[in-house]
Amino acid sequence: MTPFESLGLRVDAKGIWLLDQTLLPHEETWILANEVNAMVEAIHSLRVRGAPLIGVSAALCLGWNAKNGMSRSEILTSAKKLIDARPTAVNLPWAVNKVTENLHEVHFSKEVIDRSESILKEDVLLCEKMASHGEPLIDDGDQILTHCNTGGLATAGIGTALGVIRRAFEKGKRIHVFVDETRPLLQGARLTSWELKKLGIPHTLICDNMSGSLMAEGKVSKVFVGSDRIAKNWDFANKIGTYNLAVLSHFHRIPFYVVAPHTTMDSQCPDGSKIPIELRDPTEVSRIGAYKGCPSYNPAFDVTPGSLVSGFVIDTGIHRP
Amino acid sequence: MTPFESLGLRVDAKGIWLLDQTLLPHEETWILANEVNAMVEAIHSLRVRGAPLIGVSAALCLGWNAKNGMSRSEILTSAKKLIDARPTAVNLPWAVNKVTENLHEVHFSKEVIDRSESILKEDVLLCEKMASHGEPLIDDGDQILTHCNTGGLATAGIGTALGVIRRAFEKGKRIHVFVDETRPLLQGARLTSWELKKLGIPHTLICDNMSGSLMAEGKVSKVFVGSDRIAKNWDFANKIGTYNLAVLSHFHRIPFYVVAPHTTMDSQCPDGSKIPIELRDPTEVSRIGAYKGCPSYNPAFDVTPGSLVSGFVIDTGIHRP
Repeated sequence: MTPFESLGLRVDAKGIWLLDQTLLPHEETWILANEVNAMVEAIHSLRVRGAPLIGVSAALCLGWNAKNGMSRSEILTSAKKLIDARPTAVNLPWAVNKVTENLHEVHFSKEVIDRSESILKEDVLLCEKMASHGEPLIDDGDQILTHCNTGGLATAGIGTALGVIRRAFEKGKRIHVFVDETRPLLQGARLTSWELKKLGIPHTLICDNMSGSLMAEGKVSKVFVGSDRIAKNWDFANKIGTYNLAVLSHFHRIPFYVVAPHTTMDSQCPDGSKIPIELRDPTEVSRIGAYKGCPSYNPAFDVTPGSLVSGFVIDTGIHRP
Repeated sequence: MTPFESLGLRVDAKGIWLLDQTLLPHEETWILANEVNAMVEAIHSLRVRGAPLIGVSAALCLGWNAKNGMSRSEILTSAKKLIDARPTAVNLPWAVNKVTENLHEVHFSKEVIDRSESILKEDVLLCEKMASHGEPLIDDGDQILTHCNTGGLATAGIGTALGVIRRAFEKGKRIHVFVDETRPLLQGARLTSWELKKLGIPHTLICDNMSGSLMAEGKVSKVFVGSDRIAKNWDFANKIGTYNLAVLSHFHRIPFYVVAPHTTMDSQCPDGSKIPIELRDPTEVSRIGAYKGCPSYNPAFDVTPGSLVSGFVIDTGIHRP
């Protein structure tokens, strides 16, 4: 397979390497995830995360195994395991299904390998297109609020929402980014701050509950977030807390943009109520602070109606539902 | 001084004891805070917290020192130090000023002692009155969302918002309480969950960013919060994140109640823009998750316009601005 390296993913002669994102920002440890079970574990435990990147990683894992002689039936079983690793982001089943579409062909291994590599290349390109479409939405002097992580750690390219922000910064626009820490797993605090620091983009970390008062004080001019699944009616799922931001932006009349590749759009899903929401281990919430055994609730995503969105920045262009 | 004991405060022959709330729920350690400097440190570092309770504790500290021979001028200096320990809650200057009002009298020590004891007794009574006025607002079957801690750890009595909830539960109403963890210092996760467990009231801990999706799913029927200062026009300050909840409640047409004693009302403060907002150490935000030195922002409170409030439950009755 063609060598590749991005912020969170590496492909070389030894196989598929993932930067273990659960250890960031304090440790930069790369793990080999060639085995399907290793990749499933890495996706489930968020060592690799971000809707586009989990799709790409799962596809590459199948490609690697096809190259190493995995049979048709093993590939099918592996594909199912990978899809089941996380339920909400549609990019994962999209990529896996695309890679395994032509298993009936004689040269099925080559099909799987080629398709997995195409998905990787396409993801990088989609990020560039989103950045091009989205960048003009950002003005010099903007103070941008973002949630979770949507950058080079969430895709194989420069990112979705954070890719747009990065492109605006690279074009010389003076911007400041407020980073929601994104409880419970702190992807904003751990990953987005780390990426912004690497990029030299000025940023301030806040708790998720500070967004409203920042908006009321006029300190937020735009909000940019990613997405894990966009339904046919433009309702979309994203990291828990996105819906709060959308309602707060609406109340304060602050533009609220969603940036995602077309691979996040699910034409089979009529509306947000049909998006499966991953419920994760409740102790991810309760383990800091609460008494042992405290009942808690841990939906990893929420659904925001398309009507609260100022624009969807897709690789195909900007869509205003 | 008359012996007294509540969830977070104890007065005995040795003096004024505070349950160190920074160690809850894992450790229950009582600290003696007779010295003015010890009380100032305890208030500043949140060993004792809650707008009403910091007022009561500061008053008792002056009472204790007056009893032990502190001079007029020392009392005045101590009063100033105590007031400066935290800026936002008006209960602190209110209590300290009330205790030191009659320093010109011959028997000033007795004045200080008596007034500090009156403030303690009054606070217990005010909680009872708020609970009586507020309890009828809660219906059987209500699912109540609350923020921060407003119970027996925040007052000398049964609490403000949590006191109302407790009284409804004691009257046999079947309720469920969703507890905002309340980042960054997790007063909801650490203190409110602990109090609710002690009281046997069913509860579920959530991250602050989950409130919107719970509301959208119809899982929240009412919101009850406390307050640290209510301006003349009914704008009020409360723990950071309260404003987000108020906007979300407004958007979902969910009743949003503020419970506070009249000692939280500041007739000198015309509106919310004049309430001093305490900015705390930014590392309280960044120390979990972020890279070392990550810039962060840490306002301890936010301001909510009175227009977003369904009713203020005060000891004097329910006020709808």
